Amino acid sequence: MDFDDVSWATIGHPSVSVAPSVFACAQKGKWNGKQTLLAYVLAVESMHQIARLTMPQLSERGWHTTLAYGVFGAAVPAVRLLGLNEDECANALGIAVSRAGGVRANFGTQTKALHAGLSNRIGIDCAEMAACGINASHNAVEGADGFALCFTGEAIKGEVDIGEFWDLHENGLVIKRYPCCSGTHPTNDVWDEFLSAHPLKAEDIDHIEAGVSLLGPKEMTCHLPQNAVQAKFSLEFALAYRLIFGKLSLSSFTDQNVLAPEIQAMMKKIKMEVSPELAKLGFIGTAPIRLKVYLKDGKAITLSNDLAVGNPEKPLPEQVVKEKFMDCSKGAADQEKAEKWYEILKNLENATQEEILSLGNP
Amino acid sequence: MDFDDVSWATIGHPSVSVAPSVFACAQKGKWNGKQTLLAYVLAVESMHQIARLTMPQLSERGWHTTLAYGVFGAAVPAVRLLGLNEDECANALGIAVSRAGGVRANFGTQTKALHAGLSNRIGIDCAEMAACGINASHNAVEGADGFALCFTGEAIKGEVDIGEFWDLHENGLVIKRYPCCSGTHPTNDVWDEFLSAHPLKAEDIDHIEAGVSLLGPKEMTCHLPQNAVQAKFSLEFALAYRLIFGKLSLSSFTDQNVLAPEIQAMMKKIKMEVSPELAKLGFIGTAPIRLKVYLKDGKAITLSNDLAVGNPEKPLPEQVVKEKFMDCSKGAADQEKAEKWYEILKNLENATQEEILSLGNP
Repeated sequence: MDFDDVSWATIGHPSVSVAPSVFACAQKGKWNGKQTLLAYVLAVESMHQIARLTMPQLSERGWHTTLAYGVFGAAVPAVRLLGLNEDECANALGIAVSRAGGVRANFGTQTKALHAGLSNRIGIDCAEMAACGINASHNAVEGADGFALCFTGEAIKGEVDIGEFWDLHENGLVIKRYPCCSGTHPTNDVWDEFLSAHPLKAEDIDHIEAGVSLLGPKEMTCHLPQNAVQAKFSLEFALAYRLIFGKLSLSSFTDQNVLAPEIQAMMKKIKMEVSPELAKLGFIGTAPIRLKVYLKDGKAITLSNDLAVGNPEKPLPEQVVKEKFMDCSKGAADQEKAEKWYEILKNLENATQEEILSLGNP
Repeated sequence: MDFDDVSWATIGHPSVSVAPSVFACAQKGKWNGKQTLLAYVLAVESMHQIARLTMPQLSERGWHTTLAYGVFGAAVPAVRLLGLNEDECANALGIAVSRAGGVRANFGTQTKALHAGLSNRIGIDCAEMAACGINASHNAVEGADGFALCFTGEAIKGEVDIGEFWDLHENGLVIKRYPCCSGTHPTNDVWDEFLSAHPLKAEDIDHIEAGVSLLGPKEMTCHLPQNAVQAKFSLEFALAYRLIFGKLSLSSFTDQNVLAPEIQAMMKKIKMEVSPELAKLGFIGTAPIRLKVYLKDGKAITLSNDLAVGNPEKPLPEQVVKEKFMDCSKGAADQEKAEKWYEILKNLENATQEEILSLGNP
């Protein structure tokens, strides 16, 4: 549903790439909370350490990092569950090199979301293949014609390692406030804040110029979306929706809302372009925005924002996180059950085997 | 077993990438020989038409074409079996773009052979996902951050199309005479021919210089192999084995043969390097060879070969093809059954549903 957490190490979505594998393995292995948390940390760090040596080049080349790095992370819990030794673990990751993929051309289609599911399925599959005795190059990430060279065109400096630098500890994760591409988030924040204080109407606006950073046009590819999936990758939709229908939430993203004539008309008045000022920052994921709103009365409003709420430096209030969890749980569990799951996940380190087993079972 | 056919369109292995998918779909769909052959031709042409627009850059970048292109071909028979319409077919191929992969770093390991199996499994999976209604970009091969750009770094000129130029008709396929990397084949031919006429002994040889083309060091990565899988990617092993133990065949590739002290000693006397003359030909797959054999008595023998037997211009005699088939069938069927299969496959166009169903069932 594009409501994942975000990592700037991968400009991608760590939890959705590995958590299904982590919890599936935890339930199969009857792990307690500590063991589950450890597997999660190892999974995320495994993909982030490979990302540290190959980003941003991999993303610049057009790959979608959720699947390109996710397979490594998702393999790790299964490696632990199957009790693989060091050699077999290296085989699993070497097989994963041959199964990494996922292109950004599929943004705006269901295949983009599929990348997250595939990451988990492929990761577990790689560990199972290694458990069957299939071997792979132990140098498949760093070596000749390996992951780094194929996905970035450049050899990497340094060695992939875990334990010296913990990305989760140093950089943390970003929790999304809106269920759409993180590239829209700083814009959504500043636009929401402005409209809350100065209620504008669509008919007041002549046109809007949105200056974005280099990643912008690569991620927000749908300028005039025609369905809900495309709308998640549209800065134009986010701006038009907030202006006309109010706050963005899970229920905003329906085909009907996207096709509403006033939304379609407003989106045509918005022009997204790379801002020369922001381009100087390079291929970053934080999606800073320079917004210029031209009114019909000749006035212009300038808005800018460099970092979305939800980043470690601007954390979401816990109440908002809980509301998001409850919102996302609708359809999967009733309110009472969802609240129990939330409490278990909030205190994951101290969860019992039984509590881990109860997760996801309504 | 690295005894596949070869295509110069992909510098890869068409039949092993798609035939399991073709025959699985044929048996499930109860196709006759004509329908089966049509699905095979469409499968191979689908991958070759994408390859025509993205080779040799994709291979130069380090990708293994068997999996990188194979997923497209393997999807096609399943698209036919499931009766997908044009839109769903484009979705299947768009999903395949996000699942293409496979790096050459895994040559010399079991994962290299796994690429062929994965190609078939993934291809069928992509068609089934499209049948479930999952959509994907219909521009995922040619478009922004699509297959061509991600795998080659270059946009493609022209459009992927089938029907104007039939690669199978124009260029045909190469049938391997030896069960190892096709990069060794012209060398094996000329070395076999020379030794048949001039029986040399290992102790006569001081050292050998093998001048290869640009693809040589990328494919034949194992200079001192220590097991049978590595030996398939070793020009040194092929030369040493023919010299010391005689003709190369399926039974040559055992760990025991590879580790034989006289083979290990001989391989150390062989130096493989890119020949400046052959480098001028660019990134070609035909593997021409310039061999210089320095004898201990001071003499030197020069051998060269530009094309292996098995290419359409130098076809294998039918008897040799049949022997290869019978050799490969050992363990899968008794001789009588294997001969029946051979006759069915030789006359595939006229095979009945029942004959297709009988293939592979001992």
